[in-house]
Amino acid sequence: MSELAVKAQKLDAADELAALRDRFVLDPGSDRVADAAGVYLDGNSLGALPASVPDRVADVVRRQWGELRIRSWGESGWWTAPERIGDRIAPLVGAAPGQIVVGDSTSVNVFKALVAAVRLAREPGHGGRRDEILVDATTFPTDGYIARSAARMTGCALRPVTPEEVPGALTDRTAAVLINHVDYRTGRLHDLPSLTAAVHEAGAHAVWDLCHSAGALPVGLDEHGVDLAVGCTYKYLNGGPGSPAYLYVRKELQDRFDSPLPGWNSHAEPFGMHPEYEPAPGALRGRVGTPDILSMLALEAALEVWDGVTIEAVRAKSLALTDFFLECVAEYVPAGRVESLTPRAHAERGSQVALRCADAGDVMKRLIERGVVGDFRHPDVLRFGFTPLYVGFGDTERAARVLAETLAV
Amino acid sequence: MSELAVKAQKLDAADELAALRDRFVLDPGSDRVADAAGVYLDGNSLGALPASVPDRVADVVRRQWGELRIRSWGESGWWTAPERIGDRIAPLVGAAPGQIVVGDSTSVNVFKALVAAVRLAREPGHGGRRDEILVDATTFPTDGYIARSAARMTGCALRPVTPEEVPGALTDRTAAVLINHVDYRTGRLHDLPSLTAAVHEAGAHAVWDLCHSAGALPVGLDEHGVDLAVGCTYKYLNGGPGSPAYLYVRKELQDRFDSPLPGWNSHAEPFGMHPEYEPAPGALRGRVGTPDILSMLALEAALEVWDGVTIEAVRAKSLALTDFFLECVAEYVPAGRVESLTPRAHAERGSQVALRCADAGDVMKRLIERGVVGDFRHPDVLRFGFTPLYVGFGDTERAARVLAETLAV
Repeated sequence: MSELAVKAQKLDAADELAALRDRFVLDPGSDRVADAAGVYLDGNSLGALPASVPDRVADVVRRQWGELRIRSWGESGWWTAPERIGDRIAPLVGAAPGQIVVGDSTSVNVFKALVAAVRLAREPGHGGRRDEILVDATTFPTDGYIARSAARMTGCALRPVTPEEVPGALTDRTAAVLINHVDYRTGRLHDLPSLTAAVHEAGAHAVWDLCHSAGALPVGLDEHGVDLAVGCTYKYLNGGPGSPAYLYVRKELQDRFDSPLPGWNSHAEPFGMHPEYEPAPGALRGRVGTPDILSMLALEAALEVWDGVTIEAVRAKSLALTDFFLECVAEYVPAGRVESLTPRAHAERGSQVALRCADAGDVMKRLIERGVVGDFRHPDVLRFGFTPLYVGFGDTERAARVLAETLAV
Repeated sequence: MSELAVKAQKLDAADELAALRDRFVLDPGSDRVADAAGVYLDGNSLGALPASVPDRVADVVRRQWGELRIRSWGESGWWTAPERIGDRIAPLVGAAPGQIVVGDSTSVNVFKALVAAVRLAREPGHGGRRDEILVDATTFPTDGYIARSAARMTGCALRPVTPEEVPGALTDRTAAVLINHVDYRTGRLHDLPSLTAAVHEAGAHAVWDLCHSAGALPVGLDEHGVDLAVGCTYKYLNGGPGSPAYLYVRKELQDRFDSPLPGWNSHAEPFGMHPEYEPAPGALRGRVGTPDILSMLALEAALEVWDGVTIEAVRAKSLALTDFFLECVAEYVPAGRVESLTPRAHAERGSQVALRCADAGDVMKRLIERGVVGDFRHPDVLRFGFTPLYVGFGDTERAARVLAETLAV
């Protein structure tokens, strides 16, 4: 057994979170895995299945829908699910209750948040023309596409800048800034506290996209005075494929949150059937249409894996895992064959490792055939996501070893 | 046995669709039902559970998500589900394939369709100012709220008119018209062919909301040259609570469909990760973010109840059921106690009966206690929805009888 394999065993033995793995359905024995138990390092794309989900979903389908039917909107708590599940996510991102609603896709929530942010910036007293939106030039594309639409529909110019360039790009024309907390491609963690402060200093509002940070590291939304944030729930929150996204609106801004999608679910009296829109108080104002109950209640069950778990412990293990993976890669993989795009500094690292590799598409195919599942991002990036709730150090060492063997072929 | 009960037996015996009831999970024996098997007349709010859904959902959760995980985006057909399921809905609303995508809520789809309709009307050659949106003044409120937002964000005035008033209200300022095919409250069916023709004559585009007609009666989208349409799938399509809605964009308009929500799922090359948006061809252009797979695949299973069923046969039975219900109500309920808001003329009737009743809220509570489930719409309406796939004539007679008994107390 190699030195690193021995080290992995020791790290696993000392891992306080190791037992959480039992809260997931893993290794059901895929016929694809020829020579090793699977190592799932794609939880930054689709989280593994929490063990509590299948029975819950079956109950929602068979009893809540099949038997109680329409009564479940009240009796099974369907109607209040978006804010109830929002409150379940809140502690994971450092938010007090009453500020998050779950529903719609991340893209739709980016639209709500960004348009609302521009409208906030144009309230009296902000000064300036407020006709420009800054958008993270390195963003996952959908945020950029939606930002362009939000800019077009609010009469703003859209200006792509890297997160590092944001402070220098802020002017009294800046209405809103859309930034990713962790870069989807490189895994770089951006400095949320200082960037938020700079945006505020310029009289603008920040919208943070937490897709690649929520559930992997502390976000501190309330602590750092974030205005608006969005995120998906199918990565580190393990909500299932395409599970509903969420929207955070800071309490002090909720009364002025002016949604471009004012559906009946955000009305102060949704069953009053009033022809005029009157927005509900609080986070509910971020709701739109009828919530997608099957997906939403699967997510609610999935969030039970967080019972008794602190995000700080998860972060500590996440850094230990990515450190260890980089160490194993450096040891096993021939020099120059891959190049890490992920920052070495902990303060700049999310919970994934991105390796640049000339033939990344082919390499990932072969890795997956051998049971090591990461993903490929065009044109030359191997992505490996580390979910501390179910990934161990032995998995990590094995993944690096299989990677080295694959690259040696 | 009363004369009407005998008639019901005969009608049920002659009902060609009677056996379809077995495709649903019904009457699992609720402890609420004291004196009769349940009669579910709220399928116009939440359709009953199709029998094929529970096992399918279990497979999606346990095997597709739990075992195949990320590979299911390709191997389990997750990625193409929105357009595949759209094509499954298409024949039910008279659309050729390639024009419908499933996803998002009805409210979000109304926003997409209405903004796109305004943009179409402003293309060169339409003439006029095109700065007004007409909206059905009797609409389910969310359409009105979203229409107001769409108007605000496209620089239009919003003018609420009843569907009957639409032809007289059309001018060369009209950009788009949003109308409900069937009124959610009264069950009135509006004249889609002639209204669409009038809108086109004025150089504008029509957006039809099919929530209360799709799955209950023929819509004929292609035949009548409808431009854009939206609808939910949890009423007569039985997709489950909050199941995803759909968007129809007529083939000839697809290349010019300019979505206000251009998410990465509608990109021509979604995994190219291009910073610039280039819309996909065809109906895919209506997609936004990552599709909600659990809810979406539950809907796909639910649509199997339509195998071998024509919408014309469903319509014929629907009219027979509502005729018979009105006959039973006239016979059993003391004169003057309720007043039907639902038109008697078949050409003006959807698939529900709405009865005005002074104490409607209390009456519906008592009906539900006795197992007859309809719903109440503020301030004085009892709604009874008739889903021909699983409601029979015996159910209908019993519902009217229990209603009469309830009103006699």
